[in-house]
This record gives sequence, structure tokens and C-alpha cells, in this order.
Amino acid sequence: MAVMMDAEALTVFMREVFDQVADDFAVDHVGEGEITMRLLTANKHLRPGGTISGPSMFALADVAAYLVTLSQIGPQALAVTTNCSIDFMRKPAAGAHLIAKAQLLKLGKLLSVTDVLIYSEGLDKPVARASLTYAIPPKPLS
Amino acid sequence: MAVMMDAEALTVFMREVFDQVADDFAVDHVGEGEITMRLLTANKHLRPGGTISGPSMFALADVAAYLVTLSQIGPQALAVTTNCSIDFMRKPAAGAHLIAKAQLLKLGKLLSVTDVLIYSEGLDKPVARASLTYAIPPKPLS
Amino acid sequence: MAVMMDAEALTVFMREVFDQVADDFAVDHVGEGEITMRLLTANKHLRPGGTISGPSMFALADVAAYLVTLSQIGPQALAVTTNCSIDFMRKPAAGAHLIAKAQLLKLGKLLSVTDVLIYSEGLDKPVARASLTYAIPPKPLS
Amino acid sequence: MAVMMDAEALTVFMREVFDQVADDFAVDHVGEGEITMRLLTANKHLRPGGTISGPSMFALADVAAYLVTLSQIGPQALAVTTNCSIDFMRKPAAGAHLIAKAQLLKLGKLLSVTDVLIYSEGLDKPVARASLTYAIPPKPLS
Repeated sequence: MAVMMDAEALTVFMREVFDQVADDFAVDHVGEGEITMRLLTANKHLRPGGTISGPSMFALADVAAYLVTLSQIGPQALAVTTNCSIDFMRKPAAGAHLIAKAQLLKLGKLLSVTDVLIYSEGLDKPVARASLTYAIPPKPLS
Repeated sequence: MAVMMDAEALTVFMREVFDQVADDFAVDHVGEGEITMRLLTANKHLRPGGTISGPSMFALADVAAYLVTLSQIGPQALAVTTNCSIDFMRKPAAGAHLIAKAQLLKLGKLLSVTDVLIYSEGLDKPVARASLTYAIPPKPLS
Repeated sequence: MAVMMDAEALTVFMREVFDQVADDFAVDHVGEGEITMRLLTANKHLRPGGTISGPSMFALADVAAYLVTLSQIGPQALAVTTNCSIDFMRKPAAGAHLIAKAQLLKLGKLLSVTDVLIYSEGLDKPVARASLTYAIPPKPLS
Repeated sequence: MAVMMDAEALTVFMREVFDQVADDFAVDHVGEGEITMRLLTANKHLRPGGTISGPSMFALADVAAYLVTLSQIGPQALAVTTNCSIDFMRKPAAGAHLIAKAQLLKLGKLLSVTDVLIYSEGLDKPVARASLTYAIPPKPLS
């Protein structure tokens, strides 16, 4: 599985198609079927009690699964999440970035499946895990 | 399962503990082990292509499962989501509110399990389904 | 969504393609996008402590989602489960049949999504819930 | 996380409490928070079309998550699965054993969370992935 889009290409793409949220995320590293990226935690991601909201963790897992899929198939803005299962395991630190390490487990013609572990920067153990399925739009007949 | 917190009490509670997002949601109806609530769709919830983002649908499912649990046990701000499985089935209309109908399937001492169907206002068929587990903090010994 | 295969047709089909397990299950009722069926609980489904095994409940949810999908699209032996999320909520009675009530939430060209509630015969509240995605094989070009 | 039960202790335990299915599984290796085990594929696990049934893969994931939890907390027959999410990604070979590699992601007082990858012996890529939550019975007050 050769990388078709690297960290820079994915960052440019994210800015083009998801301008509203592109400032929230940074791509750290792209490898063969894997990506490391982060949520640049800001006030809007926090919850009372000093932690990061579930939807913010979901959003990070979702964008990581999306981008690692695109890193292998190229820019397909219309790929859509069809399923996500997520376990929240520990409370992230409020003041720290979240780091997602995503691995593409399957890349089929129609579906991709990605596993994601989410870490709170500075902690050893993952704060959440997620698995996501993306539906890949069929290629137009040429 | 008598209702301990009704729509008004849940709305007041949501405003107290989640002030950042309370403007996004409205509680329409609370029954025995069930709630109907909505996401007041705004620009920040949209995605290019005229649809509502996955994290916004997740956030609605999450708050519905939280509030239907609290409607039965009273105000326990510290209940936390431990697991969510969500299927995205259809594209919601960008200009419409999302409506969640949540049903509490189990209310144990330690865990609650809730099923949620999400509708795009004006459409018959659900746009997403989710099931969520909440961990309920143990009661302090008195 | 008209019914293409009724309870009798599904029972015959199940016997043809899954002869090994057909004796374990009975179809009680088929409606538009819904099915009620049961696991005929036998010794092999039990666990010490007087309950029914998780894999037996999974198997019932899986066959219910499969058959309710086929009830709408006709006999497609090659439809395959791609995802299942299941919550085990209560302990089923060891001596009772399990009853699954499944509802087709989405029937697309490529994927179906089904919600299943599993009951222990004689108890009011569900013992498990599951949601399953089936991949539907593309129709051959004719 | 020191290992409290090794492969031999887990095998003996499995035979004591799950005698009906103990012949189906073998424990290959136990490490700190991880286990490798296999389904000794037999005729009853197969499906027409030359593959292994979904419930058999579920059963393997379930027992792997159970045993890796017990490897850390000792013999607690009453731990129960509360949730499983499983993705079926590829078709296993009918004649091959299935190998599960499970990793304990969280071991709390009340819940454990385990990730499992399932391989068909001889193939590189996983045929399924699963994540499971077990509820751990509270320790009796002494």
C-alpha cells in the first residue's frame, strides 16, 4: 500500500474541504496505512470537570480514519463514515492535546476499516479507542 | 420507572453543567425511560455538500442518552459515556433540525444502555442510529 | 417495502443453505422490514451458572438480521455480515427460548442495517440488543 | 500488570468452567496484558461456501477477551461480557485455524476493555477485529 497523499497533501486537502474544522487538527505523520494526528485542544473542546468532550474525541477519530483512507486512495471528498464504535476508557487531561494513532486494517473497493487509539499527550495509556468504517464512492466508469 | 427530572428540569441542568453547548440542544419531551430532543442546527454543524457533520450527530445521541439516564436517576453530572456504537445511514438535510428519540433499555446500578434513533426533521426514515453505555457513579455511603 | 420472502420461504431457504444450524432457529413472523424469530435453546447453548452463551445470542441476532434483509431482497446466500455491535444487558433464563425482534432500519443497494432486540421468553425487558450491517452482493449485469 | 494466570492456568480454568467449549480453543501464549489463542476449527464452525461462521469468530474474540482479563485478575468465573463490537473484514480459509491476538487496553475496577485481531492461520492480514467490554464482579468485603 503506497502512500498517495502525504501529511502535507492531506493538510492542504483538509483545509480545502473542511475549512471550518481544519484549524482544530494537525497531521503529524503518515506511513503505509497509518497516520498520527492531533486535536489542537481549545476551549470549545472542554467539559466542566477539566476534561475533553466525547464529541471532540469522536471528531478526532473520525478525521483520522478519513485521512488514513485518503492517504491510500487519493482525494475523495465524498467518502462517508457508515459506522463507528468507540470506547472511552480514561479521562484526558484538559490542558493537553489529543493524539490519534490510526491504522488501516482493511481497504476494499467499497469499504475501509480503521482502528484508532487516542492518547492524551504525556500519558502512556490510551484514553479512547475507536474503529470506523468508511464507504468509498465507486469510481466513475471512464 | 418514574420520571425524576422532566423536560424543564433537564433543560435547567444542561444549562448549568454544559453551558458551552446548551444552546445547541432542546428537550422536546420526556416520558418513562424515553426522551425526544433536537439539535438546533447551526452553521458550525454543517459540512460541505450540504449535510450535518458526524460529530454533531454523535453529540446529539450522546446528550440524549445522558439526559434520559438522568431523567430516571436525578442530576448526576459525573455519569460518563463508556461506549458508543453509531451507524450513519442517510444524509440529513443541511437546513433541518435533527431530532433524537432515545429509549433507555437498561438502567442498572452501574451502567445504563440507551438506544437512539436520529431523524432529519421532515423525513420519515432515520438518518442514524446509536447505542450508548453510561457508567453511573456509585452512590456515596451515607 | 413489500415482503419478497415470507416465514415459510425463509425457513426453507435457511434449511437449504445453513443446514448445520437450521434446527436451532424458528421464524415466527415476517412483516414489512421486520421479523420475529427464536433460538430453540438446547444444551449446547448453555453456560454454567444457568444462562445462555454470548455466542448463541450473537448467532440469533446475526441470523435475524440476515433473514429480515433477505425477506426484502430475495434469496441472496452471499450477503455477509460486515459489522455487529451487541450489548448484553441481562441474564437470560437457561430453560427459556430466546426471541429476537429485528427491524430493518436501512436497505441500500450495498448495505443493510438492522436493529435487534433479544428477549428471554417470559421476561418483559430485553436481555440483549444488537445492530448489524450486511453487505449485499451487487446484482450481476444482465 | 503482572501475569496472575499463565497459559497453563488459563487452560485448566477454561476446562473447569466451560467444559462444553474447552476443546474448541487453545491458549498459545500469555504476556503482560496480552494473549494469543486459537480456534481449533472443526466441521461445526464452517459455513457453506468454505468459510468459518461469524458466531465462531465472535466466540473466539469473546473467550480471548475473557482470558486476557483473567490473566491479570485471577479466576473470576462470573465476569460477563457487556458489549462487543466486531468487524468482519475478510473471508477466513475454511481449512485453517483462527488465531486471536488480544490486548487489554484498560483494566479498571469494574470494567475491562480488550482489542482483538483475528487471523486465519497462514494469511497476513486480519480477517476480523473486535473490541469487548467485560464487567468484573466487585470483590466481596472481607
